[in-house]
Amino acid sequence: MKIIGVADTTFARVNMAAEAIDELRATGTGFRIERYTVPGVKDLPVACKKLFEEKKCDMVIALGMPGAQAIDKVCAHEASTGLIQVQLMTSKHIIEVFVHEDEAESPKELKKLASNRAREHAVNAYDLLFRPERLAKLAGTGQRQGFADAGRID
Amino acid sequence: MKIIGVADTTFARVNMAAEAIDELRATGTGFRIERYTVPGVKDLPVACKKLFEEKKCDMVIALGMPGAQAIDKVCAHEASTGLIQVQLMTSKHIIEVFVHEDEAESPKELKKLASNRAREHAVNAYDLLFRPERLAKLAGTGQRQGFADAGRID
Amino acid sequence: MKIIGVADTTFARVNMAAEAIDELRATGTGFRIERYTVPGVKDLPVACKKLFEEKKCDMVIALGMPGAQAIDKVCAHEASTGLIQVQLMTSKHIIEVFVHEDEAESPKELKKLASNRAREHAVNAYDLLFRPERLAKLAGTGQRQGFADAGRID
Amino acid sequence: MKIIGVADTTFARVNMAAEAIDELRATGTGFRIERYTVPGVKDLPVACKKLFEEKKCDMVIALGMPGAQAIDKVCAHEASTGLIQVQLMTSKHIIEVFVHEDEAESPKELKKLASNRAREHAVNAYDLLFRPERLAKLAGTGQRQGFADAGRID
Amino acid sequence: MKIIGVADTTFARVNMAAEAIDELRATGTGFRIERYTVPGVKDLPVACKKLFEEKKCDMVIALGMPGAQAIDKVCAHEASTGLIQVQLMTSKHIIEVFVHEDEAESPKELKKLASNRAREHAVNAYDLLFRPERLAKLAGTGQRQGFADAGRID
Repeated sequence: MKIIGVADTTFARVNMAAEAIDELRATGTGFRIERYTVPGVKDLPVACKKLFEEKKCDMVIALGMPGAQAIDKVCAHEASTGLIQVQLMTSKHIIEVFVHEDEAESPKELKKLASNRAREHAVNAYDLLFRPERLAKLAGTGQRQGFADAGRID
Repeated sequence: MKIIGVADTTFARVNMAAEAIDELRATGTGFRIERYTVPGVKDLPVACKKLFEEKKCDMVIALGMPGAQAIDKVCAHEASTGLIQVQLMTSKHIIEVFVHEDEAESPKELKKLASNRAREHAVNAYDLLFRPERLAKLAGTGQRQGFADAGRID
Repeated sequence: MKIIGVADTTFARVNMAAEAIDELRATGTGFRIERYTVPGVKDLPVACKKLFEEKKCDMVIALGMPGAQAIDKVCAHEASTGLIQVQLMTSKHIIEVFVHEDEAESPKELKKLASNRAREHAVNAYDLLFRPERLAKLAGTGQRQGFADAGRID
Repeated sequence: MKIIGVADTTFARVNMAAEAIDELRATGTGFRIERYTVPGVKDLPVACKKLFEEKKCDMVIALGMPGAQAIDKVCAHEASTGLIQVQLMTSKHIIEVFVHEDEAESPKELKKLASNRAREHAVNAYDLLFRPERLAKLAGTGQRQGFADAGRID
Repeated sequence: MKIIGVADTTFARVNMAAEAIDELRATGTGFRIERYTVPGVKDLPVACKKLFEEKKCDMVIALGMPGAQAIDKVCAHEASTGLIQVQLMTSKHIIEVFVHEDEAESPKELKKLASNRAREHAVNAYDLLFRPERLAKLAGTGQRQGFADAGRID
């Protein structure tokens, strides 16, 4: 039985964690989930570290929705840098699922994008943990999460 | 009895630490406070590390008010990066409460923003330490600190 | 027998790993290859760390194709920073082969660039591992990977 | 007897270390000084680490004067990031005293600014080490080093 | 007998390492040199770490010539950050000698600048290792490497 951590924020405007968990459960079995909600994306790195250390997670999905201002971009960068650091400290994957508020043109589109990205990355997380050969087959094929795939250049 | 560290700066133009402590005390019990004041935000990371190591804090609230110039933005970024590093070294949360001088249009607004953000993040800190289920219920609901909440997209 | 790790992404639009492996095999012997495919470039640092730790690789080639948007540039920067960190944690080389989507003017050119860069860096990786004196002879000669060499200034 | 390290550069155009040391001596006793001069600000982080490790310093003041070009700003950022890292590795304070060449409009002003900032930060360093309660009293009062204090917002 | 590492790249368009070594030998004795050539500046951090660990160097001179594009600036920043990290991991100096392609207006000027900077920094490296008092005397005197000294402000 593997343990998948799901860390998210109260800042996000969509319950991306719920979408990710729903998709994980639709994708397969053999895991249970540990949830952890923090205020913002900059709180996610230590939340993930605690999920690995205190909850013995084998992998974490970290979800956030940075704002559209310059300062939000900096926050997201700091958070991402920290998430990579945690992975290197623990030698375990964190699948970062960030949706920037300015990636969509309306709240409705933003919600759809957040849902799709969370779901597609949930499958990536499942694949990394249970069937890495599936990712290997998709190497260099221009996969995207939330938007249409870019596809392989021929 | 938990120990909450409160680190702040002489650079800030509002006594945000006093606001945070007042709010913490209004929110609940079961903790005592350790204060540490340093010159500027770049001194906060090591101050927080010392609060964890020397004062055995369980969590730290780090408050600062970066200026509005380009160089101040860089300082804030360096400080934030350091605060995340400390969290990863100690596996403990630091709630960063930074208010940028250019987030408000007048000194009066700035003071109000600083007070509100310090108070709302004090509650976040309390929740992380004593009642994390309260944050879990707010996952993906667009919470903001100091400004009106953005809310959940429906 | 040395072990060369080859880490790549499903995000890339060209199978750069296949090009690198083909070139490695055309260049020499004395090694075997461990493949690892992850979703995007930000997943590469921990993938490389795992290749070193779990697969005992002596070196890794990390291939990715960041997009052309500002946010993709930030992702690439975070990934590169992480790749350097892994090298410093393990004291082993990672040859980073990133091709930015805006380095070429058409998909066809991009594919050619990706192929050439992957192949030229595969030779660099081979040289670092098996014949470093070959790189020493090229010191300061303006070598480029994927584009024409800039050459030595005379 | 405490040991205060003073690290500076040959790049700076003002002998800021001499100003800081003069002010330290005018401020109090109970310490001796270890000097270390390096070429530029990017050499300061390891210089400070060596001062802590090899000279057993209890605190370091790191002084530098980055140039006005874009590349100088990047150098200063790298140096500052390193100085924070050293503090986190040693759990000791480094008071960074950087004066950017474009903070003043004439060489004369720049010299005055460098002297004032070095002196005011020397007092901060002394306070951190010997009388932290003095800083605590100044929390949130808008202190500045080298320029007039911004003051508390009322 | 001290050991000075000299790490450089095949990307650079001038053999800066040869200039640095020539100048080191003209400056003094008591050391021998270990060379290491890698493809680009981002490979320098681990190269330096290996020089310290595997070749027992007491100091390293790291030479590179980043290009003029925005992406080259980012690469140089990542490399510099890594070089500082190595210094902090080993408590030994790395003298970074980077010449950006856009620092000069013609290839001829660029070559001259690269040669001068490599030579002046070779003397800095020698001084740090063998006669630090020489740098101490130059504290705050506006030294530059490759260009005319800025000088002390009077």
